[in-house]
Amino acid sequence: MQDIFGYVDQHRERFLNELFALLRQPSISTQNVGVAECAELLKRQMGDIGIPAQILPTGGNPVVYGELNAPGATRTILVYGHYDVQPPDPLELWNTSPFEPTIRNGRIWGRGTGDNKGQLFAHLKATEAVLKVAGRLPVNVKFLFEGEEEISSRSLRRFMEVNRAKLSADYSFCSDGPMLPNHQPTILFGVRGILHVEVSAKGANRDVHSGNLGVFVPAPAWRLVHFLNTLKDEDGRILIKGFADTVAPPTPQEKETLRKIPFDPVVLAGLGLPAAAPGAGAAYFERLMFQPSVNICGLTSGYQGSGTKTIVPHRASAKIDMRLVVNQDPDDIFAKFVAHAEAHGFDDLQIERQGGFYPSRTPLDHPLGAAAARAVRQGFGKEPILQPCMGGSDPDYYFTHVLGIPRVNVPYAPHDENNHAPNESIMVEGFFSGIKTTAALLYEVARL
Amino acid sequence: MQDIFGYVDQHRERFLNELFALLRQPSISTQNVGVAECAELLKRQMGDIGIPAQILPTGGNPVVYGELNAPGATRTILVYGHYDVQPPDPLELWNTSPFEPTIRNGRIWGRGTGDNKGQLFAHLKATEAVLKVAGRLPVNVKFLFEGEEEISSRSLRRFMEVNRAKLSADYSFCSDGPMLPNHQPTILFGVRGILHVEVSAKGANRDVHSGNLGVFVPAPAWRLVHFLNTLKDEDGRILIKGFADTVAPPTPQEKETLRKIPFDPVVLAGLGLPAAAPGAGAAYFERLMFQPSVNICGLTSGYQGSGTKTIVPHRASAKIDMRLVVNQDPDDIFAKFVAHAEAHGFDDLQIERQGGFYPSRTPLDHPLGAAAARAVRQGFGKEPILQPCMGGSDPDYYFTHVLGIPRVNVPYAPHDENNHAPNESIMVEGFFSGIKTTAALLYEVARL
Repeated sequence: MQDIFGYVDQHRERFLNELFALLRQPSISTQNVGVAECAELLKRQMGDIGIPAQILPTGGNPVVYGELNAPGATRTILVYGHYDVQPPDPLELWNTSPFEPTIRNGRIWGRGTGDNKGQLFAHLKATEAVLKVAGRLPVNVKFLFEGEEEISSRSLRRFMEVNRAKLSADYSFCSDGPMLPNHQPTILFGVRGILHVEVSAKGANRDVHSGNLGVFVPAPAWRLVHFLNTLKDEDGRILIKGFADTVAPPTPQEKETLRKIPFDPVVLAGLGLPAAAPGAGAAYFERLMFQPSVNICGLTSGYQGSGTKTIVPHRASAKIDMRLVVNQDPDDIFAKFVAHAEAHGFDDLQIERQGGFYPSRTPLDHPLGAAAARAVRQGFGKEPILQPCMGGSDPDYYFTHVLGIPRVNVPYAPHDENNHAPNESIMVEGFFSGIKTTAALLYEVARL
Repeated sequence: MQDIFGYVDQHRERFLNELFALLRQPSISTQNVGVAECAELLKRQMGDIGIPAQILPTGGNPVVYGELNAPGATRTILVYGHYDVQPPDPLELWNTSPFEPTIRNGRIWGRGTGDNKGQLFAHLKATEAVLKVAGRLPVNVKFLFEGEEEISSRSLRRFMEVNRAKLSADYSFCSDGPMLPNHQPTILFGVRGILHVEVSAKGANRDVHSGNLGVFVPAPAWRLVHFLNTLKDEDGRILIKGFADTVAPPTPQEKETLRKIPFDPVVLAGLGLPAAAPGAGAAYFERLMFQPSVNICGLTSGYQGSGTKTIVPHRASAKIDMRLVVNQDPDDIFAKFVAHAEAHGFDDLQIERQGGFYPSRTPLDHPLGAAAARAVRQGFGKEPILQPCMGGSDPDYYFTHVLGIPRVNVPYAPHDENNHAPNESIMVEGFFSGIKTTAALLYEVARL
């Protein structure tokens, strides 16, 4: 590996320049800005390395797909990333232009540096280093880079179902999200799922004065309050019948892993909250990774300004996200949510499903995890922390269940990458350690 | 009276021109636009009639006060109106300029035509007509025109307490609000009170991602929902302890009056709701006039846009208005509201009182009511409908309790006056019938 790592060290400046070219190209999926151009650029950059790449239609934004076989290899790894980015707004909060990357204080700043172009590009440069130094890859590699991750990967499942044979592999790997707050590497074995629901109550066709016509009209704000109250009690217990029936409790190994995750109370200090109790870490992580939640993301009804306005609002709505854990099924949970509303007499409410993801987990003792840990030790020179799951959601399930491939996620971005926010960044050394980690992983996987 | 009514008919054009001068002068209290200039103009217009007028300080916008004694009169009437108006926004929805009054389709259009300059001016022109034709008034008259009605009459109570002797009178009279939908005149004997409260729940000092830090932070939106749920049950029963303890039920005479108020189902048709059941009118009016309410005017928390945003909002708030009936006291009700929150364990919530009005009623059988009814028959040539109360709120209490004077309100504006909205208007004939009604009222009151 030392020859390969030496190649990486020798080509730092060029690698950065090539990454900057990718970062300069906007690819804002939610606004459809520059997505097609970015896909073309990425395809060219893959071709330059020697990876035959194609732009494949999905019905939505295209997938950039590349495949490189290793003569005689018996193992195949599917590498996932996404080339689309979040909008850069609010622009005035950026210290430097979001689409003109710069290096400052040991970090690369710009939209997409962490999420996900910088991390995705590390896989490509690792492949280049292995090819140039060893002349061939140790394992067959398939690259799947999508352009819709920031809009809920809405075409990805169908794309996988249609291209199941093309995408067949033994393992799947990605680098997305952040490392731990102390800059320690982590290996993530799964995600929570998510189900988005918007609930609306309607009354008259306009707001009316609460002092006169207000007597005659229904009161959607009260209707919504009474419904929401049936979902969860004051102690936080979720009251939807059967909601947690299928939840798999953590295994002893998973519980042991939770105890080893460092909990940094600094994350709470910045929120203006009391410090967490000592030893609270494991309990928090169990809630974060193994327990579902029902959260109100937004409440809207009537007058939102300062002072008073005496109306009966004609509409009230709540945005709800439900985080789901293995083995909850969003379809089943949505059906239970609707049944709950009906059972409690709220069938007059409008309940709209707004997409989501399945929960997914690869077992902690899967050999892919041990291979990733060995690769991290080589690439970062640090011991990784294993996390059974992350609290957030991504298309992990499409790999583990639609394609049936185990998957791990080894983030290369720092904990404060500011993804989805102004002043996004990746550490320069995180980028290069990531390249080395991916290169080492290709060899570790070949040996499994 | 015929001589006096003849005088009114002869001077229609001049009366309209003088009213237009008052309407052209903006006097938007909430934006402090033109208020002082309007007070000066009104004072001049009163002086032109022969009413000695003064501009009296209140701490806020001034009161324009005038007093005219009738030699030998034993009775005094206090006439109330307000010269301030609502902002004209949204300007683009006006058919003609809000501060350039025009006549079209039998109506005078412009900001303040109905609320309240047009109605206030009818009292002044009635006084002129009586003075010019009879040479003297039949009753002592005091005019109190305030400049803060559209901002909750916030200096009026203190002004009355300080000027109690100056304002002493036997009766009080005003014309504000609308007539019935069938253009029938009405006499209003009271108002509901109102108490505005804003309730806020707070968590961290910023919104956090529901997939990670969301696990650690309090959930203000849920806290607010659970609190609101304790205020009112699904059947609309108010659950605040002692809330209705002091409510005075309608007397048999008041109940009888309710049955005579015409209920026009057309008010519901425009709201996209099912038609009211036949005979529902009296029940509705009892709710409107004799029952208190707890209404949510606004709900706000977290993400308000389209689609999804997975945050735990750090703040949630509800704007609540409580309509109060005789003999509820806003101070007592606010104390009960706060005690309710504490009793239910919600003392972490912030409960902010945002002003309001006391409920107030003058008895239906008070001689002032009969005098007003005789005046309406002469001025409008129609039989008035008596209403024990209106559903809305105004400073009625300051007259009936702070000054201790009975009061009736005889509106001269049409039901669709669009007060507080674009294209405000008063019927031309409503204005002139109002002048005649006020003139007749001065004589009717003198005979009590």
